[in-house]
Amino acid sequence: MVHVVNDIQISPDRLMRRVDELAEIGAITGPRGHAGSSRLALTDDDRLGRDLVMTWMRDLGLDITVDAIGNVVGQMPSDSGLAPVMCGSHIDTVGTGGRFDGNLGVLAGLEVIESVMSAGVQLPRPLAVAFFTDEEGARFPPDMLGSLVYAGGMAVEAAQRIVAVDGTGATVGSELERIGYLGAAPCPGPAPHAFVELHIEQGPVLEQMGRRVGAVTGVQGISWTAVELRGVSNHAGTTPMSMRCDPMFVVGHMTAFLRSVATEIGAPQVATVGRVELHPNLINVIPASATFTIDVRHTDDKMLREVEQRVDDELRRVAADEGVSVSTETLARFEPVVFDERVVATVVAAARRRGEEPVVMPSGAGHDAQMLARMCPTAMIFTPSIGGISHNPAEDTSVADLALGCQLLADVMLDLAADRHFEHEGIA
Amino acid sequence: MVHVVNDIQISPDRLMRRVDELAEIGAITGPRGHAGSSRLALTDDDRLGRDLVMTWMRDLGLDITVDAIGNVVGQMPSDSGLAPVMCGSHIDTVGTGGRFDGNLGVLAGLEVIESVMSAGVQLPRPLAVAFFTDEEGARFPPDMLGSLVYAGGMAVEAAQRIVAVDGTGATVGSELERIGYLGAAPCPGPAPHAFVELHIEQGPVLEQMGRRVGAVTGVQGISWTAVELRGVSNHAGTTPMSMRCDPMFVVGHMTAFLRSVATEIGAPQVATVGRVELHPNLINVIPASATFTIDVRHTDDKMLREVEQRVDDELRRVAADEGVSVSTETLARFEPVVFDERVVATVVAAARRRGEEPVVMPSGAGHDAQMLARMCPTAMIFTPSIGGISHNPAEDTSVADLALGCQLLADVMLDLAADRHFEHEGIA
Repeated sequence: MVHVVNDIQISPDRLMRRVDELAEIGAITGPRGHAGSSRLALTDDDRLGRDLVMTWMRDLGLDITVDAIGNVVGQMPSDSGLAPVMCGSHIDTVGTGGRFDGNLGVLAGLEVIESVMSAGVQLPRPLAVAFFTDEEGARFPPDMLGSLVYAGGMAVEAAQRIVAVDGTGATVGSELERIGYLGAAPCPGPAPHAFVELHIEQGPVLEQMGRRVGAVTGVQGISWTAVELRGVSNHAGTTPMSMRCDPMFVVGHMTAFLRSVATEIGAPQVATVGRVELHPNLINVIPASATFTIDVRHTDDKMLREVEQRVDDELRRVAADEGVSVSTETLARFEPVVFDERVVATVVAAARRRGEEPVVMPSGAGHDAQMLARMCPTAMIFTPSIGGISHNPAEDTSVADLALGCQLLADVMLDLAADRHFEHEGIA
Repeated sequence: MVHVVNDIQISPDRLMRRVDELAEIGAITGPRGHAGSSRLALTDDDRLGRDLVMTWMRDLGLDITVDAIGNVVGQMPSDSGLAPVMCGSHIDTVGTGGRFDGNLGVLAGLEVIESVMSAGVQLPRPLAVAFFTDEEGARFPPDMLGSLVYAGGMAVEAAQRIVAVDGTGATVGSELERIGYLGAAPCPGPAPHAFVELHIEQGPVLEQMGRRVGAVTGVQGISWTAVELRGVSNHAGTTPMSMRCDPMFVVGHMTAFLRSVATEIGAPQVATVGRVELHPNLINVIPASATFTIDVRHTDDKMLREVEQRVDDELRRVAADEGVSVSTETLARFEPVVFDERVVATVVAAARRRGEEPVVMPSGAGHDAQMLARMCPTAMIFTPSIGGISHNPAEDTSVADLALGCQLLADVMLDLAADRHFEHEGIA
């Protein structure tokens, strides 16, 4: 009989040393001196980051596999033949990224494995840590590409053909080959026994509620629409209001409408206009055209569909009234993901054992865990983001919270390895 | 006793030949093959355009003066010593300009003078045609610079020090010298007896009303404000609506508010948001900052001030509610200009004599005539703009309408030269 442990202590210092060392690769400095990182997927800096994490995996003696989309899994050596309890995340960043988004989940996984191995304990099944290719999608859309392919959501051949948005003509496949990460392991990959991802919240909820842990119940459904409006450009002084076909008026009206709909429905409904481009974009010219984006999210797909319909109806109504033509393109559409209730309950229980009452919450952002959820029982642990800031060198989390998150990752992985998640019937 | 005439016939063919020849200088082609011109003020192309018009003036035997801001006046030789009846406009264009904006008023003036001279008639006082420097202000803000200096609204030394917005460090003075148009005539210039400017409407009103002539009563007051908003950038998925400080929401709300205020007040109130810039301008990021412009115009300065105040109040209220900081900068503020009622009535009467009922209307755009109105009785004649389009190679007016406008310019100048405008007590 294997000895079951759940009191492994992780080392915050070792975790932070790795975080700092990885952040040095592609290091950038934000406007107020914050130290961030820029390691866009499959660039030279991404390769250097990968090489460093691979070195750490090798130093721990892990069995390493690299698959045909460049996902890297390091697994504790095991003769059990049992599927591992896996954790992981990503080490690519956006162009102006922080130190923790993604990196935390990977380096905390390494720390958990090192703590377990150096304690010399035997587990019922091995642990593994993965970093998935191109989670950010900033250079090669869509985001979460590596985990999508790992979980069988896209054929690896199609993924390899994706072309970089930077106009260089580089493809995922050519860049994987160039940086030496076109691996031999097949996609989709083998299903883990369970999967858990530690990640920064990237939002303000934990901080504003004064809590230190989020037990993540799933990922909001996401609907991204690009709207292109064509009106009639004219002189802002000589064109009476009644004769205007002004695409910016439609943008303004829809921005106000989105706020009013989202407020009326209430949390977790969110709606955002983040991008606007006018042409010719001059103070005294009614724009000829406008493009803007609509980002709406909800945990309930039925609600999401309802909002999409209301927004589309209003857009077409106001544009027709204004004499502005509309074309829309769905840039992304993800259904909500619901995590495994037993794994979520395991996170809740682990937090409570450490004296912390977690916020049971959905994720507003997409994560690799939502892809792994197609294959195995999955959940996530959130640790607070100071000021809710992410995708920015100013992204930050206190060392105490990072350490707590890593400790809970250890606790939960040990519970999952011992199948203690089956004891949880749901969230208390 | 001088023989008084008012039945001089202008030559549409000769007018159009000059329009076509001038448009060849700096010729550009619009997206749908429209032929426009690009002659930014004081560039080599502007010099070539000036040289061509000067050649025509010399060919007609006009007395030519070039002043210290590069304004050029060609006057019929006269021993009378009387101030001339002057017409004119500008021959500089915006970067992507049309063939008629400004050029029409200058070339029609040449045509009127040539018609009068070749008819061999004597007038009570001479006619003159002027082209004023840098009316567009596209390279050297502010617009209407040459006529402003001519009328004494800005010291010529200050105007000569204005630096190009193109970042070359060129000044009005250095460029005038370089292209050979730093003239000897002093600024301000001599006051004409009266001034009339023929110009395309640059708006849709005449076309939509099915009329061919506008008798312009003045120029709307203009208020340009740049608004800079700073919010808190955050993840569009993870930030609940209630925790947002979203500058784009403020932009959208204000765009809708401006429309609602302008519609409520009714014509001639106009209000436009023509320029918006978001940062970082990404689909899934609540913007950190937004800048946008507000252009409001009215013929009545009291109304204009009221609207400015209402807009500012609403902006500060909604921004405070949203937790967004506001700073505003007045980019331009021109009080409304009211033209001379007798000259307007002279235009109305001339149009009626030619069987056309004019639209008595304000100009929504600024024109050189508004500067000359400080010095002498002034008005303008508008000719229709097809589709209301200007500042674009697609800018167009039918040859018949151009010819009618030129003919009315002749009729009105002859009336003004004979002081028949004093017979008009106002607009019928």
